[in-house]
Amino acid sequence: MNPIDRLVVLLTKLPGIGKKSARRMVYHLLRGDPAYAQGLAEAIAGLHKAITRCRICGSFTEEDPCPRCSDTSRDAIICVVERAQDVPIIEESQVFQGRFHVLGGLIAPLEGVNPGDLAIPQLLNRVREEHIQEVILALNPTVEGDTTALYVQHLLKEYRVDVTRLASGLPVGGDLEYTDRLTLSRSFRGRIKFSFSE
Amino acid sequence: MNPIDRLVVLLTKLPGIGKKSARRMVYHLLRGDPAYAQGLAEAIAGLHKAITRCRICGSFTEEDPCPRCSDTSRDAIICVVERAQDVPIIEESQVFQGRFHVLGGLIAPLEGVNPGDLAIPQLLNRVREEHIQEVILALNPTVEGDTTALYVQHLLKEYRVDVTRLASGLPVGGDLEYTDRLTLSRSFRGRIKFSFSE
Repeated sequence: MNPIDRLVVLLTKLPGIGKKSARRMVYHLLRGDPAYAQGLAEAIAGLHKAITRCRICGSFTEEDPCPRCSDTSRDAIICVVERAQDVPIIEESQVFQGRFHVLGGLIAPLEGVNPGDLAIPQLLNRVREEHIQEVILALNPTVEGDTTALYVQHLLKEYRVDVTRLASGLPVGGDLEYTDRLTLSRSFRGRIKFSFSE
Repeated sequence: MNPIDRLVVLLTKLPGIGKKSARRMVYHLLRGDPAYAQGLAEAIAGLHKAITRCRICGSFTEEDPCPRCSDTSRDAIICVVERAQDVPIIEESQVFQGRFHVLGGLIAPLEGVNPGDLAIPQLLNRVREEHIQEVILALNPTVEGDTTALYVQHLLKEYRVDVTRLASGLPVGGDLEYTDRLTLSRSFRGRIKFSFSE
């Protein structure tokens, strides 16, 4: 296989990259500055060396423990997420100033993911040792997310800690007409009373 | 900037890659096998060393001249394309067994691309020296493509060579209802008589 096709094959293994996108990327590299291709190659090659998983929360970090886990001023609230990439998304939204915990997946028996594969014992340990007051289950509103949330919530009953889930309902800017029945039913069940004091 | 963000920034310079796709790619690399990231990095780093432009047709190749230009059995027809990546697309369709010529762009004065920036003199030379019988202008049916085709066709008038363009019209499987007016008008002007002998 020639170097162009070889790189195309490698690129199509990335998520969301088909053969056409991969080709466009390769030809873009070929037409472009060799220094850029070199820089990109070095950044990819150095990624695993520079980044590790935080031994406490499981997120990707340059230092272990990560700056978030080392920051003792954070609220005693743990936000539980499925994947490490969910952490920066929530951090950037600035809605949450607490701690994070990455489960590393969702319970999906059909895909062979069982509770034992997730960082649940570590979460229970942290809840106890860090004197956590609330655990927010920020899992996707899918069958797997719901199953995992129920499972974790069940285990946390023994601890003196509030367990919450992110609200599920109409997205901001959404349209009732184009909302599926499940989302609509969730937004009804989760309806919120107007509070005139706000 | 940390290594993750740095790689995200580099990846978003690739065509069609936004910040979210870049992030997904980086986290995919982090979760995946370090050997894959290493292989990808090496393939990118080695690209410019392994691939050069063919001095005859301008396409990307490992050997100069490229295997296509070295192949003397090819028909004396030149297919003129805008970019080097158009060559493998046409080759793979197997509709054309002739030679190629990459212009390296389209005339677009507003973007600062003038006829002098394109490999047009090289094309004229090849038409004469390779005793070419037909030049197929396989340029995109856009304003720039049409302008460039007209310009090249004008220059080729002095040579004893047929100049053709790819047919423009309804895509196979397309729908009249969803076809824009320009395409429709082109497909009318370029209408083809039924030939019962076929």
